[in-house]
Amino acid sequence: MSVAEYEGYAGIDIGGQSIKVGTIRNGELVTRDIETPPDYAVARELMLSAVTELVGGKPKGLGIGTPGPIDWRTGFLQWTPNIPWKNVSYPELGEALGCSVYVDNDANVAGLAEAVLGAGKDYRIVAGFTLGTGIGYFVVMDGLIYHGKLDVEGGHQVLNPEGPLCGCGARGCLEAYASATAIEARTGKEPEDIDDPEFWAEIAGYLAWGITNVTTLVCPEVFVLAGGMIKRGETLFAPLREKLAQMLKIVPPPPVKPAELGHRAGVYGAIVLAKRGHRVE
Amino acid sequence: MSVAEYEGYAGIDIGGQSIKVGTIRNGELVTRDIETPPDYAVARELMLSAVTELVGGKPKGLGIGTPGPIDWRTGFLQWTPNIPWKNVSYPELGEALGCSVYVDNDANVAGLAEAVLGAGKDYRIVAGFTLGTGIGYFVVMDGLIYHGKLDVEGGHQVLNPEGPLCGCGARGCLEAYASATAIEARTGKEPEDIDDPEFWAEIAGYLAWGITNVTTLVCPEVFVLAGGMIKRGETLFAPLREKLAQMLKIVPPPPVKPAELGHRAGVYGAIVLAKRGHRVE
Repeated sequence: MSVAEYEGYAGIDIGGQSIKVGTIRNGELVTRDIETPPDYAVARELMLSAVTELVGGKPKGLGIGTPGPIDWRTGFLQWTPNIPWKNVSYPELGEALGCSVYVDNDANVAGLAEAVLGAGKDYRIVAGFTLGTGIGYFVVMDGLIYHGKLDVEGGHQVLNPEGPLCGCGARGCLEAYASATAIEARTGKEPEDIDDPEFWAEIAGYLAWGITNVTTLVCPEVFVLAGGMIKRGETLFAPLREKLAQMLKIVPPPPVKPAELGHRAGVYGAIVLAKRGHRVE
Repeated sequence: MSVAEYEGYAGIDIGGQSIKVGTIRNGELVTRDIETPPDYAVARELMLSAVTELVGGKPKGLGIGTPGPIDWRTGFLQWTPNIPWKNVSYPELGEALGCSVYVDNDANVAGLAEAVLGAGKDYRIVAGFTLGTGIGYFVVMDGLIYHGKLDVEGGHQVLNPEGPLCGCGARGCLEAYASATAIEARTGKEPEDIDDPEFWAEIAGYLAWGITNVTTLVCPEVFVLAGGMIKRGETLFAPLREKLAQMLKIVPPPPVKPAELGHRAGVYGAIVLAKRGHRVE
C-alpha cells in the first residue's frame, strides 16, 4: 500500500474512548492516541498540538472522522451519544491550524479508507457494512464518499416491516437482526462468545439479504464487510456468499471482501479525506 | 418547462410497438411516430430520415432510449425481448448523421426526463420506479443517469427471500409483488380493472417498503412514481405516504411525486441525454 501522495496531510479519528491523530511521514503512517477528554476545550488543545507535532508544522490539510449525527456540509456537531461534547465546530480546528478541513461521520471515513487503500482499492464503486453495535453503511464512488440528501443509512433498510423494533423506531431493519446489539438481545450472549455455525449462517442470511438490496439499488463493484464479526472468517463468509447467490439473480453478485485496515481504517480515511475532500455539489 | 437549451438536439424513444423521434424546434417539442419495423435495416432508414427532416439537417447530438439489456458504454444491443432486432449498433446512427450519440435503457431515459424536466426538476438527486409489466428503477444525480457496475435494478430488491418467484429467477422481489404482471397473476385481473381501495393500500405498502429501502441506501431528495398505475392518484399515494412514514424512521421520507411527462418522457429524456451525455467514468 503506497500512501506517498498523502504525505503531510493530517487525520483525526474521534471515538468515545480514544482519539487517534495521524499523518503520513516518509511514506509511513505515524499516529498518536489520546484518551478522549470529556471537555471539548481540553480535547481541542490536545488534538491541535498532536497534529502540529506529528506533521512538524502546518498540515497540507486536515480530515476528521467523528461519531454523528454530523452534517458533513458544515462540519458542525451538535451532540453525539457517547461523548459529552456539545456544539463543536470542527472547521475551527482548520482555522487554528491554517489549513483546509473536511469532516464526515466515522463509518463513512473508515469506508473511504477501505475503498481507497484497503479491500476496495481496485474498484471504482465500493459499498460496505460495518458490523458493530449498529450496522454502519458507506458508499464510495470514484474515491469520494457518497452522500444523498442526508447521509445514507443502509443498516436501516427494512427486511420485515413487522419484525423486531429497531433503535431508530422502525421495525425489522437489517440492524435489528444482525448488529451486535440485536444478537445480544436475542441470544443473551456477545457475538464473540457464539460459536454455533448454524447461528452464523442465519446472520449470514440477513447480511446476504442486505447486500442483495444494495446490489440492486446501487450495484457496487465490490462489497466490503468490516467490524469485529468478520473475524469469524469463512464461518460467516461461506454461507453469506451461498445465500447471496440464491437471493440475487438479476445481476451477478459483487465480490464480498473482509476489510483490511482494521482499527487504523478511521485515521487512514481521515487522511485520505484531508486530501480528496468531498464531492462537489 | 423551458427546453430552449435542447434546441437542435434529437432523441429517439424505441418501443416494441412504436418509435418516437423528436427534437426541440423554436422552443417546442416536435415528434414523429414510426410503427416499429421488425427489420432493423428498415427501422434504421426511417429513423435517420425522420431525424434529418425534423431537425432540418444535422442534429447537434442524438440520444436514444431503447429496451434492454443494453450496455450504455458501447450502445450495442444484442437482442431484446419484444423486438426481433439482433446485434444493433446504435452509435452507428450517430456516424451516419455526423453527430455524437448516447444510448441508455428506456427506463433510465424516461427517468432522466422526469428528473430534469418533470417531477424531479427542482432536485439534485432523484430516484423513481416505473410501474408496468415489470418495475423499472432509475437514479439521476446532478442531471446525469447513475449507473453502477451494471445497471441498477431496484425492482429486484428482495422483500422476502421466501416470497413468490420473480421473472428474474429470485424470490420475493418488489417486482414479484407490485408489478402489473404480479397483480394479474395474483388476482386474475388487470390493474386498471381493480377498484378496491384495500387492494391498492396493499400495493402501496409494497411500494412504500421499496421506497424505504431506496431512501436508506441512496437517500434521494425526491422519489418519482411513473407508469399506468399512478392514475389511481390518492387511492395509491395516500396509503403509500402513510406506510412510508411508518416504515422509515432514521431519516425523513422524501416527497413522493407522480411523474409529469407521461408517454412523452422517453423522447424528452433521449433529447436531454443527447445534450448531457453520460457521467464521465
